[in-house]
Amino acid sequence: MLTKKVLRNVVVAAAAMVTMPAMAQQNYKTDSATIKNIYNNALTSYESYENLRYLTKNIGARLSGSPQAAAAVEWSRQVMEKMGLDRVYLQEVMVPYWVRGDKEVGRIINSKLIGSQDVNILALGGSVGTGENGLSAEVVEVKSFEELEKLGKKKVKGKIVFFNRPFDNTHVITGAAYGGAVDQRGGGPVAAAKLGAIGVVVRSMTNDIQDVPHTGGTRYEEGVEKIPAAAISTRGAEQLSKLLANDPNLKFYMRMTCETLPDVLSYNVIGEIKGTEKPDEIILVGGHLDSWDVGEGAHDDGTGCVQSIEVLRLFKDMGIKPKRTIRAVMFMNEENGLRGGRKYAEEVKAKGEKHIAAIESDAGGFTPRGFGIDGNDGQYAQVLTWKPLLAPYGLHDLTRGGGGADIGPLKGQGTVALIGFRPDSQRYFDYHHTEIDTFEQVNRREMQLGAASMASLVYLISEYGLSGNGAKAAK
Amino acid sequence: MLTKKVLRNVVVAAAAMVTMPAMAQQNYKTDSATIKNIYNNALTSYESYENLRYLTKNIGARLSGSPQAAAAVEWSRQVMEKMGLDRVYLQEVMVPYWVRGDKEVGRIINSKLIGSQDVNILALGGSVGTGENGLSAEVVEVKSFEELEKLGKKKVKGKIVFFNRPFDNTHVITGAAYGGAVDQRGGGPVAAAKLGAIGVVVRSMTNDIQDVPHTGGTRYEEGVEKIPAAAISTRGAEQLSKLLANDPNLKFYMRMTCETLPDVLSYNVIGEIKGTEKPDEIILVGGHLDSWDVGEGAHDDGTGCVQSIEVLRLFKDMGIKPKRTIRAVMFMNEENGLRGGRKYAEEVKAKGEKHIAAIESDAGGFTPRGFGIDGNDGQYAQVLTWKPLLAPYGLHDLTRGGGGADIGPLKGQGTVALIGFRPDSQRYFDYHHTEIDTFEQVNRREMQLGAASMASLVYLISEYGLSGNGAKAAK
Repeated sequence: MLTKKVLRNVVVAAAAMVTMPAMAQQNYKTDSATIKNIYNNALTSYESYENLRYLTKNIGARLSGSPQAAAAVEWSRQVMEKMGLDRVYLQEVMVPYWVRGDKEVGRIINSKLIGSQDVNILALGGSVGTGENGLSAEVVEVKSFEELEKLGKKKVKGKIVFFNRPFDNTHVITGAAYGGAVDQRGGGPVAAAKLGAIGVVVRSMTNDIQDVPHTGGTRYEEGVEKIPAAAISTRGAEQLSKLLANDPNLKFYMRMTCETLPDVLSYNVIGEIKGTEKPDEIILVGGHLDSWDVGEGAHDDGTGCVQSIEVLRLFKDMGIKPKRTIRAVMFMNEENGLRGGRKYAEEVKAKGEKHIAAIESDAGGFTPRGFGIDGNDGQYAQVLTWKPLLAPYGLHDLTRGGGGADIGPLKGQGTVALIGFRPDSQRYFDYHHTEIDTFEQVNRREMQLGAASMASLVYLISEYGLSGNGAKAAK
Repeated sequence: MLTKKVLRNVVVAAAAMVTMPAMAQQNYKTDSATIKNIYNNALTSYESYENLRYLTKNIGARLSGSPQAAAAVEWSRQVMEKMGLDRVYLQEVMVPYWVRGDKEVGRIINSKLIGSQDVNILALGGSVGTGENGLSAEVVEVKSFEELEKLGKKKVKGKIVFFNRPFDNTHVITGAAYGGAVDQRGGGPVAAAKLGAIGVVVRSMTNDIQDVPHTGGTRYEEGVEKIPAAAISTRGAEQLSKLLANDPNLKFYMRMTCETLPDVLSYNVIGEIKGTEKPDEIILVGGHLDSWDVGEGAHDDGTGCVQSIEVLRLFKDMGIKPKRTIRAVMFMNEENGLRGGRKYAEEVKAKGEKHIAAIESDAGGFTPRGFGIDGNDGQYAQVLTWKPLLAPYGLHDLTRGGGGADIGPLKGQGTVALIGFRPDSQRYFDYHHTEIDTFEQVNRREMQLGAASMASLVYLISEYGLSGNGAKAAK
């Protein structure tokens, strides 16, 4: 399977180069030099890294609806205002406002082996609280929804369900391991409540064995009891599982005072450079401005935001006048609602704007590996014609399928290609949604290589469009 | 230039695939499955990471000749003894024994702007001391040896020469930036002493602006006065340079009590699995066991050592019986003498051993990007035929030129291909030769992906040899 895929990609790439439109061939030298200058500029600039420092250290965690999220909106607006862009504006969006309340308490109680002991938990975003007194109950451990179903109401009623399916560490791309486990976090509380459970504990979504719990969004369903749900650290999960094997009747105590407050008015923050030849054709580059309420939201997704602003800075600083319009968008509320992404797409539709490509950076500020392209065959083939320009910078993985949560709602509007920036994935889930997703974990060069990669792709699309017509022969 | 190179590589790769020997084609499925299993095993194993933890946390820094280096020899011998290999042995080698002495003092004195202030310095490895009282002198700053020559004896005599050429951060591969600056550290003291200088301060070899100084080896020359030489942190260098611009007559004080003690008997540590079909054809995989005397020698080169042992563990654990002999070598004294590498090559020659490939991991335990191959055209083309098997794991950079310091002395012995493992380079010089090169900076998955990459290449060479004959048509 891998052979065929790799062989086909090489053959497609080789064919694409051979059949590259004459114009592209002619401009190869110019494009190559421009891209080299983009990387040179990014690698020697500290502005974007200082932006990240401000966003993470001075503003910090910024969950939708929080004062910090409001500060991040105003800060990013000001940063872009100072850049002398053609337009900077806010787009109103009502967002949910969930607050964590007191620090959570998670406790194994009356275990035969260790007695009582606290373990690290974090309420899942959107969860209801336990009430002031907390709740305690016996625990049933499951690895899957099928296993839970088999246990049935009789064995689940009145209990806490402990979802403990770990990441499959054999996946080279960690996102695939996340994809194979995150259903427990999103769907666990509803599935457990349907069988009468009174609480849920979910193993943290990480490759690592750590003490730090990972929060993240969960969902409730109309007509199903809303039960409190928390993430437990992977080390805590391993311990709880071992204790349960010895002592199935031990109890778990959890106390969480989180709650959902009324919606709050917030904003997507948008800055743009107008295209000189086709200003109506828009290339979006973006990340999300909100983060979870723990840590500093550095890799998720502070880096995506400052990289998107950096793309505009690079064009301005180098005096590149793009033929098409480049728009940087800091989306609000990716983490617990996606309201910003949805609102943005609605507005695009209402205004009849034409987006030809949307690139999202929401996988961390790590060394770039490539882009995932969700577009038609011609668009994909066209991006492959640029591989010789991008591969020298480590951008080898130009694969089909991509995009990002915030740009997802744009799908199907005209022929917009949705493109996900793909950095190296190994460390992302060590930090994701935790108190250790901090500025210190971001390496300036890795982040700047990412910004330069995005700027280079934006530059090529702004020069040649992304209709895919010119490259159709290459398929 | 990039076009041609990239195009040629793609064409060579495509041609290589088309002309792949029939046998190789036939075994593609098996090889692909074996390599997948190698990665699966490595990504789910914690043994090698625990080895690194022991080497870095329990033994720690281990400069040649030190008790810690002796402990590392015995520890790695025991680790391999327990693995049930076909042979584990030590190879005697006399090594230099340099000791740092007291913590160094570096001080800007009598600056008009700030008065006196301490700055972070580290003696360069091999440097002579300053004597108990230290030395102080005016400072001349230069960016190059040409600049130093132009100043001449008159302006240099009795002074401290401050070499302050920074890394060129526009290099995407940080090793290239290192290569463009490290001549100052190695050759600075001799060049300065020839003009009558009494001391040398060298800007630390790093991309980053940091407070931590980076040590590293320097050289003296017969007949040239040996003067004390220290590295200053990059932040200290920036400050000193600014102060000098305002106040060329400020003085610098340095005190170092380092000295070179008599040579010590030490060892290369070697373990091997005998080949089933061609036991006389040896594939070497190695790193260096010694480190600088600050920090923990984690990325430099604890990871290279435990990865080399991990290659053997993977073969044993998976029950792969290699056709050719696989030998893991922990070299001694890479950092300040290369005596281990030289001794090893002498022994190979004396015994008439046939090495067909030598792979060194000495660029950190980061996510793998590829291998650099220093071999003949046929050998390079043969490695390229394996690209479809390796690229799915991010090993895209199969480039010419490679090797490593310890395997360098093997060059020219038969047709041995010298191969350097190439991990992502962005963070390496943040930690290199400093007190912050610690276990905490190593990500288990990144390191294990590297070990699996090395094991996969070793597996392919053990199956097919590396004569390059089968792939000559592919050139």
